[in-house]
Amino acid sequence: MGVDAGAPRAVVLLSGGIDSATTLAVARSSGFACYALTVNYGQRHRVEIEAARRVAAALGVTAHKVVELDMRWIGGSALTADIEVPKTGLGEGIPVTYVPARNTVLLSLALGWAEVLGARDIFIGANAVDYSGYPDCRPAFIAAFEALANVATKMGVEGQKISIHAPLLRMSKAEIIRTGAVLGVEYGLTISCYDPTEEGRACGGCDACRLRRKGFAEAGVADPTSYAH
Amino acid sequence: MGVDAGAPRAVVLLSGGIDSATTLAVARSSGFACYALTVNYGQRHRVEIEAARRVAAALGVTAHKVVELDMRWIGGSALTADIEVPKTGLGEGIPVTYVPARNTVLLSLALGWAEVLGARDIFIGANAVDYSGYPDCRPAFIAAFEALANVATKMGVEGQKISIHAPLLRMSKAEIIRTGAVLGVEYGLTISCYDPTEEGRACGGCDACRLRRKGFAEAGVADPTSYAH
Repeated sequence: MGVDAGAPRAVVLLSGGIDSATTLAVARSSGFACYALTVNYGQRHRVEIEAARRVAAALGVTAHKVVELDMRWIGGSALTADIEVPKTGLGEGIPVTYVPARNTVLLSLALGWAEVLGARDIFIGANAVDYSGYPDCRPAFIAAFEALANVATKMGVEGQKISIHAPLLRMSKAEIIRTGAVLGVEYGLTISCYDPTEEGRACGGCDACRLRRKGFAEAGVADPTSYAH
Repeated sequence: MGVDAGAPRAVVLLSGGIDSATTLAVARSSGFACYALTVNYGQRHRVEIEAARRVAAALGVTAHKVVELDMRWIGGSALTADIEVPKTGLGEGIPVTYVPARNTVLLSLALGWAEVLGARDIFIGANAVDYSGYPDCRPAFIAAFEALANVATKMGVEGQKISIHAPLLRMSKAEIIRTGAVLGVEYGLTISCYDPTEEGRACGGCDACRLRRKGFAEAGVADPTSYAH
């Protein structure tokens, strides 16, 4: 864990995938002392948690918290309930891997920690392009959460403007990968797959694997991923 | 647990105190099938959880979920960290019993459950009058969360308007107690104290106890509470 005396603090949501790893690298390169927050919400892809630990260590965060919040009681998603992860390619509309209110919950927890840390900046790897159709990955969502953050907290009420940064919001997966490659992100440490094998290999068929493969191909960057299929 | 076939569903945040019990009674009397949500966030006053169970049973909810979300890792509050609960009366500004981003987190979880239930209505007992100065109990906060809810979710994106109801927002504690008394709330089942004794008796000195005592006195309703002091 690095020491960043004097640097402004930022809370960075870190899942262990490509997008959040790249977001952390962007926050670091912007001069923030980064406090990474990983939430184990009962997702199928728990190997993500280990990936998040590796990414945090490699990129040099000031602190990394892994928090338990079982969202399986909410249900309604292939990521947290007993619904099959689709393997037939991206369809129309909002997919079954959408986790109801997930990013709202994650940003709320980040906001609470930010307030205690005195951090006015929160980073999330939300992406509205290759985003699989999730409502809480759109610019309107990020703007609405920022407005909320500034009335919900003591910091906001006292006039310290809180900013929600989603630096990847309008990037394609290829642009994200090229950005991270420039900033030294080791993508071999990250995991995207929604339904990895017992050994932690990527399935190769879920939406996340398809977007990942396509992204590396389009970026012209070698894909370090081991796909089962 | 009651059955409310055909009634519109609402998620109601239920802590076990006066305000949320009254809010549940208001939601019931408005014709909603109520899904009560209690979050055990690591607060000092865990006896609240048992109070919530008693209130839910007495008022007749369709379902009641008690969810674990330890917020003690965030710290920064006398309710969740090792900071003493003040007993010297209401002071100026935002008190140390403020839990950073608490209502944002609670409403986010309610929103996730509402989406899975198909409930377009969420009730919270936030109060801006006798509110001890919490930023996330103000009308601006409720309005900002409602705006967020409508862009954060599949329901909202598909045009089903989500409403955040805070029916007590502008009531005094005395008005809340009179409203609940009319609706048949048994306040003897509720607990307000931030720092109850081992046996679950109210301390009598914390802000919550002071507001409760004053509320019953001003409402002209007999206070069923057993105070230690």
